[in-house]
Amino acid sequence: MSFANRDFLGLADYAPDEVRFLIGRALDAKRGKRLPSLAGKTLAAIFFNPSLRTRLSFQIAMDRLGGRAILVNAGSEVWAIEYGDGAVMDGDTSEHVKEAARVLDRYVDALAIRAFPQFKSWDRDREDVVIRSFAREAKVPVINMESAIEHPCQGLADAVTIAERLGETKGRPFCLTWAWHPKALPLAVPHSALLAAAHLGMEVRLACPPGYEPDPDVLGKVKTLAADSGGGFQTFHDQAKAIKGARVVYAKSWASIARWGDAEAEKAARKDLRAWQVTGKSMRTTADGFFMHCLPVRRNVVVADEVLDGPACAVYDEAENRIWAQMAVLSAVVGR
Amino acid sequence: MSFANRDFLGLADYAPDEVRFLIGRALDAKRGKRLPSLAGKTLAAIFFNPSLRTRLSFQIAMDRLGGRAILVNAGSEVWAIEYGDGAVMDGDTSEHVKEAARVLDRYVDALAIRAFPQFKSWDRDREDVVIRSFAREAKVPVINMESAIEHPCQGLADAVTIAERLGETKGRPFCLTWAWHPKALPLAVPHSALLAAAHLGMEVRLACPPGYEPDPDVLGKVKTLAADSGGGFQTFHDQAKAIKGARVVYAKSWASIARWGDAEAEKAARKDLRAWQVTGKSMRTTADGFFMHCLPVRRNVVVADEVLDGPACAVYDEAENRIWAQMAVLSAVVGR
Amino acid sequence: MSFANRDFLGLADYAPDEVRFLIGRALDAKRGKRLPSLAGKTLAAIFFNPSLRTRLSFQIAMDRLGGRAILVNAGSEVWAIEYGDGAVMDGDTSEHVKEAARVLDRYVDALAIRAFPQFKSWDRDREDVVIRSFAREAKVPVINMESAIEHPCQGLADAVTIAERLGETKGRPFCLTWAWHPKALPLAVPHSALLAAAHLGMEVRLACPPGYEPDPDVLGKVKTLAADSGGGFQTFHDQAKAIKGARVVYAKSWASIARWGDAEAEKAARKDLRAWQVTGKSMRTTADGFFMHCLPVRRNVVVADEVLDGPACAVYDEAENRIWAQMAVLSAVVGR
Repeated sequence: MSFANRDFLGLADYAPDEVRFLIGRALDAKRGKRLPSLAGKTLAAIFFNPSLRTRLSFQIAMDRLGGRAILVNAGSEVWAIEYGDGAVMDGDTSEHVKEAARVLDRYVDALAIRAFPQFKSWDRDREDVVIRSFAREAKVPVINMESAIEHPCQGLADAVTIAERLGETKGRPFCLTWAWHPKALPLAVPHSALLAAAHLGMEVRLACPPGYEPDPDVLGKVKTLAADSGGGFQTFHDQAKAIKGARVVYAKSWASIARWGDAEAEKAARKDLRAWQVTGKSMRTTADGFFMHCLPVRRNVVVADEVLDGPACAVYDEAENRIWAQMAVLSAVVGR
Repeated sequence: MSFANRDFLGLADYAPDEVRFLIGRALDAKRGKRLPSLAGKTLAAIFFNPSLRTRLSFQIAMDRLGGRAILVNAGSEVWAIEYGDGAVMDGDTSEHVKEAARVLDRYVDALAIRAFPQFKSWDRDREDVVIRSFAREAKVPVINMESAIEHPCQGLADAVTIAERLGETKGRPFCLTWAWHPKALPLAVPHSALLAAAHLGMEVRLACPPGYEPDPDVLGKVKTLAADSGGGFQTFHDQAKAIKGARVVYAKSWASIARWGDAEAEKAARKDLRAWQVTGKSMRTTADGFFMHCLPVRRNVVVADEVLDGPACAVYDEAENRIWAQMAVLSAVVGR
Repeated sequence: MSFANRDFLGLADYAPDEVRFLIGRALDAKRGKRLPSLAGKTLAAIFFNPSLRTRLSFQIAMDRLGGRAILVNAGSEVWAIEYGDGAVMDGDTSEHVKEAARVLDRYVDALAIRAFPQFKSWDRDREDVVIRSFAREAKVPVINMESAIEHPCQGLADAVTIAERLGETKGRPFCLTWAWHPKALPLAVPHSALLAAAHLGMEVRLACPPGYEPDPDVLGKVKTLAADSGGGFQTFHDQAKAIKGARVVYAKSWASIARWGDAEAEKAARKDLRAWQVTGKSMRTTADGFFMHCLPVRRNVVVADEVLDGPACAVYDEAENRIWAQMAVLSAVVGR
């Protein structure tokens, strides 16, 4: 198991024992164990999309490891990057990813990149051109701070939170449930949450209205991973059934792939789905289950006040675990 | 006198001996005394409104204390926070202050918040909902980097500047004078300046055109504090009379509460008030008085070149003292 | 040769032996020699115009020297500075450069400033009012991170790259060639590149279409410097002739002074000039020459893929040398 200099683009690219190693390292750090120092190391954290929590948690993670994070706001107006090979750059793009990556290689020891989907075509978005191009061109490791297809730092923090609370995770029922939300949201978080639970060998339950199934390739990977790790996978279109008896209820809204980028159609499709909310009543049907969400969360829309303010709420631990999970990843892949 | 973990929301919340303690600590630091270290401590400085001087001075203050400031630009487009209890968040707000504060609690050791008035209703603005909500929900101390009602770090820096220059402050005449300005400005700085002078037991003179009196509750607090500390309070509508014999002349423009948020009415009301400017001539009527302003200042509008470029100008000391004052506050309230 | 506390506004202000000293120091640092520490020193890097590479490289340079860079985004909406002496500031400007500079003097140990031309009048732009005003008013040293007239940190990095590759530079042919580009770009980089080559005593060749000659005063300085340092200067309107036999080919696009600020006229003037591109074919006519560009560069417009991806490409070294060059400057001028 060697992590040095590897990219961390998705939980789908790592083996279950590697994920378990990173979970263990995160929990070690949380318990006060000193991780390998990143003194003298610099991370460039490049935000093609804005962020608050991710900015803070990466800065703090590098700080605690003794290194340094430099944040770069790279809105498309500021830095219009060309990704096409052989392009004649006489249009809107002003720098090729080859130069961007090769210069960053000279400046820093690792890159972290946040690049959301464009919401025009899922087929194109799922290629993750931005982060995959940087990963291909840069020699230093590239860490995904949320792309179209995955948010693996969130997923690892989710896994840390589950492992921390449950101890043994194999075969335990984990329910990811879609939730109503006024906006069409990306798929990265649900993808990584499903992969996290699969890595832990849980009995993974996906609850969503018909037509809201995430990316089929990711689901295929979830099934394989879960089966290989002693768990399973099942889709439910009935939220109550999926939540019943679960040890973990993870709520999240996302857009349907069939209506990807069509805000009006999406709005119409979900107009009768406001009942997809996690409530105190639904939580009481779990097997002493706890509640997860990546935050920010819309109260009384995605989940009821009663759940967030009650003892089964794990969202603050989950947010804190972002720091420990990212410390585990950074200390593993940023080597010398 | 215990400061550990206390919020620093306003000079109105602190007792005179506490303010004097902080002034002493700031002056100690300025003279080279080492304050308690904040090594390993992180401050999240959250700017709901932009800032240059405050950003710099908080970063430098944390640096000099051995700690770390992380700056967060939280324009309302980026971070639309809900403050209402029990709100059904299906509208524009995407995160509740409860989650925001509880996550920040896990991430950092102190919060500093800048949130200006909305300029729609003074009755609502004076509630300081943003900073008071964070202070209520967060366990870590919250420091006010300027809210609607106070700018206590500026006020403390003002007090440090006065104490540094005058030594004994009790009974010395301090004049805060309104000044003409093309824009309607907030009340936080004049409020905190008045409170600072009151804490120092000065003979506080407020000079303003009729109708420009600051918030009555703040003025009530100023009167009580000044009286309790051996000083007094008096309002003047004649600038010349108020400045005459003063040891300190503090110029500042602000909007009238009666026309709060009505830019046109405010413009009309002040159209004949351009004479409210501090000039060399007015300074020569003081008792060897010096000139203060929080900066940025409009030359030859609020104050004449002659004053700013002359020997009675204390504005650069005042700006520098922001750093020492903030070091005093941070080292006192950010404990372990 | 004394650098302490000197501004670094342009290569035109430094003597050849001073530039050579800084080159030597940059190369020493690159080879691992420890430069004088800037521990406890703070640089305020003020960006009136955005930047990615310059932001990163200044932060990293200060980091490696043990100091601290604080970045300030000062878009004109945020910080509308008055530069006029005696101005009555009742209009759009809200702070005078006198206050801005004097406060920064109290806060930090050095200023770095980026302020692009306005593209209305070259006569006005070439005065560099922003950076020259800060330099005049501030006591701490001011470093130019690109103004209208020069980009001396880039120029010094260029000189470091040339010295590193050639060893002896005296009399070696250096060709700066204009390149076609869809936009009208500033003159700072070509000016500083010409001055850098002149300082190195190279045989400086300027290749550009008629009417694209840079600022005549800068060219005068280039001629004098080159002659004094054992080199020479010649203008070519035929790119092929200028490149032939060169040891260094530096490509860059810039706007013509005659059409300064007239985007339409500029577009029309250059519409038949797309052949001004550096290609593999042109590079093969050099004397084992290498290729330079300050980046970002438009591939297959300014220079062909073949050149950037081939062994004669020095642009990544050049980008890396920004850090070493800036460390040399900072450690020299930021003293006690």
